[in-house]
Amino acid sequence: MQSTQNLEKKYIEESGNLRDVAVIGIGETRIGELWDKSLRELGIDAGLSAIKDAGVKGEEIEKIYIGNMSAGSLINQEHIAPMIADYAGLDDVPAVRVESGGASGGMALTEGYLSVASGLHDIVVVGGAEKMTDVGDQEAKKILSSTADWEWESIFGATFDSLYAMMARYHMLTHGTTKEHLAAVSVKNHANGSLNPNAQFQKEIPLKVVLNSPTVSDPLTMFDCAPLSDGAAAVVLCSADKAESYIDEPVAILGTGMGADHMAVHDRRDLDTMKATHIAGEKAFSMAGLKPDDMDFAEVHDNYTISEIMAIEDLGFFPKGGGGPATERGDTSLHSKIPVNTSGGLKAKGQPVGAVGINQAVEAVLQLRDQAGKRQVEDAEYGLIHNLGGTGASAVVHILGRWR
Amino acid sequence: MQSTQNLEKKYIEESGNLRDVAVIGIGETRIGELWDKSLRELGIDAGLSAIKDAGVKGEEIEKIYIGNMSAGSLINQEHIAPMIADYAGLDDVPAVRVESGGASGGMALTEGYLSVASGLHDIVVVGGAEKMTDVGDQEAKKILSSTADWEWESIFGATFDSLYAMMARYHMLTHGTTKEHLAAVSVKNHANGSLNPNAQFQKEIPLKVVLNSPTVSDPLTMFDCAPLSDGAAAVVLCSADKAESYIDEPVAILGTGMGADHMAVHDRRDLDTMKATHIAGEKAFSMAGLKPDDMDFAEVHDNYTISEIMAIEDLGFFPKGGGGPATERGDTSLHSKIPVNTSGGLKAKGQPVGAVGINQAVEAVLQLRDQAGKRQVEDAEYGLIHNLGGTGASAVVHILGRWR
Repeated sequence: MQSTQNLEKKYIEESGNLRDVAVIGIGETRIGELWDKSLRELGIDAGLSAIKDAGVKGEEIEKIYIGNMSAGSLINQEHIAPMIADYAGLDDVPAVRVESGGASGGMALTEGYLSVASGLHDIVVVGGAEKMTDVGDQEAKKILSSTADWEWESIFGATFDSLYAMMARYHMLTHGTTKEHLAAVSVKNHANGSLNPNAQFQKEIPLKVVLNSPTVSDPLTMFDCAPLSDGAAAVVLCSADKAESYIDEPVAILGTGMGADHMAVHDRRDLDTMKATHIAGEKAFSMAGLKPDDMDFAEVHDNYTISEIMAIEDLGFFPKGGGGPATERGDTSLHSKIPVNTSGGLKAKGQPVGAVGINQAVEAVLQLRDQAGKRQVEDAEYGLIHNLGGTGASAVVHILGRWR
Repeated sequence: MQSTQNLEKKYIEESGNLRDVAVIGIGETRIGELWDKSLRELGIDAGLSAIKDAGVKGEEIEKIYIGNMSAGSLINQEHIAPMIADYAGLDDVPAVRVESGGASGGMALTEGYLSVASGLHDIVVVGGAEKMTDVGDQEAKKILSSTADWEWESIFGATFDSLYAMMARYHMLTHGTTKEHLAAVSVKNHANGSLNPNAQFQKEIPLKVVLNSPTVSDPLTMFDCAPLSDGAAAVVLCSADKAESYIDEPVAILGTGMGADHMAVHDRRDLDTMKATHIAGEKAFSMAGLKPDDMDFAEVHDNYTISEIMAIEDLGFFPKGGGGPATERGDTSLHSKIPVNTSGGLKAKGQPVGAVGINQAVEAVLQLRDQAGKRQVEDAEYGLIHNLGGTGASAVVHILGRWR
């Protein structure tokens, strides 16, 4: 790990050369089965909301980044970035798509951040969009599996559900995590989702219902798995020196970090840890000069309940094996020390895969602007967002904070 | 156009804040119908060649960008960037995919460039890979059409071939371009390809054969259309201050520019011009402080012969309407003032769609290092590479130059 540490040190030193970057606008669609909206309409709705929120003019936008997993397979459309830009009336603005499975949105945010931090651009829009319900459930799940290792996992019948189920089983075996711990994640996220008007599921679910719901891949039940959804989200980024000329309460991007791991689950050193998450978190904390204790909330990638438990451990909020009990105790609930997935998370807010990272950014900005309504975290000053690709081969973490 | 000019001015001013970036390593596979190689093998072959050429160690690489159009549809595999990194033994290195149809490679190069120019990273690998022959020709063409506007063009039967044929027809009508002009592009590029050991087609084709080949979409014949190929390419980027510690002859990236246009051909203002190319070229020239006359060679996106004619006009090498006659006169041939597609271009070197932009970069570096063998341009000091997405909704241009 010596070489990783050296890189780590250099990463932090080098990030000192970057300009400060702020989020000055946010927008998102409601998430759900949106059969009356196409991908381009979702992208446009979210993008124009964000631009309007920021009060920027179209001609001020210098570049657009769009996170998206699989529009090619889901709706026969590649090259979606210029398409969405065009139909939003921004056909003069260069637009590019970034893909990293479920982490596409967060990775797009990193590239957008970098394009402003570098000094090349002043105003950039980063969006995420996915349209998953134009194909059947089985086809959508198959396409999702294409972000695992197709030739060495999926082709042999290893579904996404089963790969995560293996991780859950191993976590239970090694750390005593229980089905009740997993279920507590779902109960909490549905409770939070009931307070979010953009969430796909806005209904509280009792523990008993989660525990008695049909098994998808043992030990994961239907309520341990996030839905596959339609939706889009967007943020407007701006160089710090100009941010206040657009908006009274810009939100600062204080840190960004990416991590990687083996593609196939069977090649990983540990099944109870996401190495990519751990490294991404460390880099983001280092760049921000903050630690897990400083965070007032976190949005983590709960595509499965076990994913949230691993994430809150790997990010340093709880020791390994402590994530389940902490969740059951309510230590990640809305009014705890570290509320996790106040938005409802992927479980209840919904999972438009390539948009997830931007949906998380929107939630963080709402919290840091005191605009999160009934799910507002009091005096939120710093928040973390964590976005995961595939079964954990890529991860990206951002730390956002209140302006100055 | 006032607002575009303002952005242009700002773009150039702002690029003054960026660090200088060099290409210190290149690698590519042979292009063709490579039935014995998978996408990951192609990516690894190209990547490891580039790393070896640069003499960098795996642990020095800080990030990987991979340009790819449609691995999801072509081989059921999304999330390919961490997969290729992993199987190349670089599972610790964060990797992300960039997609912009046929311009995926060039757009990835821009993002890689920016990550080094910003100061965040010192050494970054940018690759491009596409595996197109695992599906049949018709399926591959359908997938290629997904980079046009699926809902407003492809679904009604407008193929890529027919959309470019319309542009060719309009160019002929407006500027007197002839079938012989188009054919001259193909003849030249096949002649160049015959000198390139990595080219898919290494055989000279006489004009008569091109003119008498079967019509694909009138006026385009089989020899007016580039093949759909398998292949991969990679470059290693490095901050200028460290480049010479790795290699005696680094190559400088002097300018980068992106342009955009309406997604659907029927929405464009002109059918004889690629606005995206024109704007991308202007930005890249401005950043480099150079003009078309300064270029010693150019690799342009000749997915169809008409594309090359439009590109050499839109990039300012020839006046509008002058591209065809110039090609017929031999003014873009290997030993002319501005040799175009010395590599053989997409027509003869081949078209692994998402890799094309990086294949072009490899050719430019070979020329600027005097390593292009029988197709070497004498005393090449500056070269331009031009990569096009879809039917022209996105374009990206880079200008490379000999070191100091």
